[in-house]
Amino acid sequence: MTLRNEPLTAVFDPRLFRENSQTAVAQLESHLADLSIRGLELTDPLVLSEAARALMTTEHQSIARFDEKKLAAIIELYVRTGIQVHSPGYMGRQFSGTVPLAGVIDFVGSVVNQPSSFYEAGQLPSVAERIMADELNRFIGWEPGRFAMVTTSGGSLANLTALLAARNRAFPGIWARGETGGETGGPRPAIAVSEDVHYSVTRAAGVLGVGEARIVRLPVNRRRQIRADRAREAIAAAEARGLKVFCVVASAGTTPVGAFDPVDELADVAAEAGAWLHVDGAHGASLLVSDRLRRKLRGIDKADSLTWDAHKMMFVPAPCTLLFYRHAHEAIGAFRQRASYVFDEEPDAYHDFDGGDKNLECTKRPMIMPLWTLWAMYGRALFAEKIEYLCHLTEEAHRIVAAEPDFETPHSPEANILCFRYRPGGVEDEHVHHLQLQIRNQVRGGGRFFISKVDLDGVAALRVVFMNHQTTGEHFRMLVDEIRRIGAHLLTKRSGR
Amino acid sequence: MTLRNEPLTAVFDPRLFRENSQTAVAQLESHLADLSIRGLELTDPLVLSEAARALMTTEHQSIARFDEKKLAAIIELYVRTGIQVHSPGYMGRQFSGTVPLAGVIDFVGSVVNQPSSFYEAGQLPSVAERIMADELNRFIGWEPGRFAMVTTSGGSLANLTALLAARNRAFPGIWARGETGGETGGPRPAIAVSEDVHYSVTRAAGVLGVGEARIVRLPVNRRRQIRADRAREAIAAAEARGLKVFCVVASAGTTPVGAFDPVDELADVAAEAGAWLHVDGAHGASLLVSDRLRRKLRGIDKADSLTWDAHKMMFVPAPCTLLFYRHAHEAIGAFRQRASYVFDEEPDAYHDFDGGDKNLECTKRPMIMPLWTLWAMYGRALFAEKIEYLCHLTEEAHRIVAAEPDFETPHSPEANILCFRYRPGGVEDEHVHHLQLQIRNQVRGGGRFFISKVDLDGVAALRVVFMNHQTTGEHFRMLVDEIRRIGAHLLTKRSGR
Repeated sequence: MTLRNEPLTAVFDPRLFRENSQTAVAQLESHLADLSIRGLELTDPLVLSEAARALMTTEHQSIARFDEKKLAAIIELYVRTGIQVHSPGYMGRQFSGTVPLAGVIDFVGSVVNQPSSFYEAGQLPSVAERIMADELNRFIGWEPGRFAMVTTSGGSLANLTALLAARNRAFPGIWARGETGGETGGPRPAIAVSEDVHYSVTRAAGVLGVGEARIVRLPVNRRRQIRADRAREAIAAAEARGLKVFCVVASAGTTPVGAFDPVDELADVAAEAGAWLHVDGAHGASLLVSDRLRRKLRGIDKADSLTWDAHKMMFVPAPCTLLFYRHAHEAIGAFRQRASYVFDEEPDAYHDFDGGDKNLECTKRPMIMPLWTLWAMYGRALFAEKIEYLCHLTEEAHRIVAAEPDFETPHSPEANILCFRYRPGGVEDEHVHHLQLQIRNQVRGGGRFFISKVDLDGVAALRVVFMNHQTTGEHFRMLVDEIRRIGAHLLTKRSGR
Repeated sequence: MTLRNEPLTAVFDPRLFRENSQTAVAQLESHLADLSIRGLELTDPLVLSEAARALMTTEHQSIARFDEKKLAAIIELYVRTGIQVHSPGYMGRQFSGTVPLAGVIDFVGSVVNQPSSFYEAGQLPSVAERIMADELNRFIGWEPGRFAMVTTSGGSLANLTALLAARNRAFPGIWARGETGGETGGPRPAIAVSEDVHYSVTRAAGVLGVGEARIVRLPVNRRRQIRADRAREAIAAAEARGLKVFCVVASAGTTPVGAFDPVDELADVAAEAGAWLHVDGAHGASLLVSDRLRRKLRGIDKADSLTWDAHKMMFVPAPCTLLFYRHAHEAIGAFRQRASYVFDEEPDAYHDFDGGDKNLECTKRPMIMPLWTLWAMYGRALFAEKIEYLCHLTEEAHRIVAAEPDFETPHSPEANILCFRYRPGGVEDEHVHHLQLQIRNQVRGGGRFFISKVDLDGVAALRVVFMNHQTTGEHFRMLVDEIRRIGAHLLTKRSGR
């Protein structure tokens, strides 16, 4: 076989790369420049499949000739059918209206491809992780040089990893022999969580061999924050039932309403119980960088671990999750392994910067680079200003909707998430839930605004998450009007039947 | 608070985005055009940290003014200090010399930010996943419409997920109550794996509450493939000890040497034992797309699940892992959860395309897009030709090194991984190991070639992984010469002492 790779060489042609990039940049630039109010262009999956298949080459025997127009059509379809995170009409989820520069740096990483779990594989990402850890720890307050931070692929994986480290510390026999206490008559492992904790935490109990039935639910107050006083009781009751709560999980920004559990008090509760305190700050940890909002996480320096999604309120592409441990050695405790092709038996100067032994991932995206670059280029103020604006906007939206007699507001927002219901007089309790679902689907289908929904105490509520600083109170008023119009129409139709 | 977000608006300026992109594209273009032979420019982490810190703004009170030169310097440092996957001197790891177009599409995803686990969040990625699943299943051979595929963040996570699905099928009590058999006197869960299995698999036993001590090691032959006959015995012996092997793991391309376990025979062994057969094809599943090489995975249609890293030999940016299940319902079995803010109680037309209930991740990168786009634009031939070239090159390299009297070749390559040792006459057994480590470090430090090392039967070997079609046999000869020069020098120094 001779080196018959000319067609391959053409695929890797740097000039072709430039042309492809220019095509993409032109389309992205006009996408970013489009500040029209729009939600989601929801397409039937089968129709979209047809459209996608129509763009595919049917040639299988040799490498197809490149067709720049087809590439442009693919990019156009990709951009158009996505959630419009940069439009003021986007208010629906925790996905970021990312900073465009973050995308540019991610692009560099995609081309040079430095999957970073080991220093030699991604030197600058490894160093940037350490720098960002130090920068952000200034707002956490742990002892410099003693804590650890690893990046990982999403908040769910970070929560799982922290719970694993906690489990291994309290129940080392599980790792080695799968022994969870029942064999010896000892207490069984359990995790204490809020009613509103993210599903990845309860699911982790199933994954890690703890058992979903060993979840101890801690009651919440009207603001949907864990009640520390009741937490003590709940943990004591669980221990009386033969459980050992090895980890208490607090949320810094719950997913449903963005509530902040009292970390400071829960740290004391966890310490008294001899348990690890994990803080799921996937959504809300970013508030730490704001001098005005940091107080929401008071006591975070007493936590054992913290999940922090930079792809939410640090406005970088997903995933970029930071998992912090107060004690660096705990980070190693999550995983225990040696593989000669990646781990060196004779650690060198670089070993200390390797992250692979602290990650579930072996190959990992150099996800820190967009975050570090934004921080390097713009400084902390970029994040603080955007976060403060979004939280302020949420308060404004709350005032707007609270003043409307045909709406109800089941909570006061603590961050950038607001839930409310359209409920004019005369709507019976049993119809409220279904009405919100119908409204949400019609708003989504209308294509002007993108919002989500959540069940609170078993009843659906409409949910907005402000992630785009180009959204204003005026836009929210327009949404409220649209909801009222849709809701009133639905009620008229129903009473007309 | 008024809308004081003018500085923010400047950060999101579409023209600035275009300028930043042009800076990046120009640097990446010249990087891709540089075909010089080079390995790794290994830098002291502290020196690199200094360089990185020098590029950071010291402004913290307001958003810093943008400095395009600083951005260029960051990109330059990022590109220069990375593994040079597009250089012919890169022979060291399984990271891809990615197709540049794949990076361009990833870039689009980074800017429009459509984290895709749910249809509404990433419509085209959801559809593209389904299309690629069907396209690739043509080479697996499962029943269309009955199998499932999910994308996930790396092979380690895919292996964990498959083992979790297998565990839940065989031991449902673990998910619910953490019961692993000991309580009831029943058999305890165990996993049977090759001596050479990837560390993520054995580690998963620790994570999932099975226990690392419940790993049953299956012996390998001289080609380092699992011996199916001995596997039967080993599993029977384990069951006699009170274990229940619920999963047999075969590797399609082991990490150390790229060996392919006999999937066809192991499928029979697993079926007889009533166990799930998982194939870790992270490295080698891509050979399925080649008519010439597909036979290495004979019997794959009898497996229950398959891990396939497209970020290895499908040449897209990491991570892009495909996890296939023969039976779609098993994919749901890995995780069991409901969360009202993401899962709809009233499934609509889109629900069938949601992937979130089959993934550990909640927010997930739309990682299929680069792969689907390459497949759409170039067809299968792109992948088949590159893979065939790399495997052919590996055979050529094997012939080259086998003909050298001062080298030894402990295995015959089956894919694109080759291990060998520099061992001229007179080197005692006990010095061989250390000599290879020294050679590898000096080759790496020399900056011309990037290679890795692995322990085979406890003795280090040099390891090359051919991932770049721009590498030729001539380049490998140059590496052999360099190794000989370094090795001979090391031996002279030693005997001189």
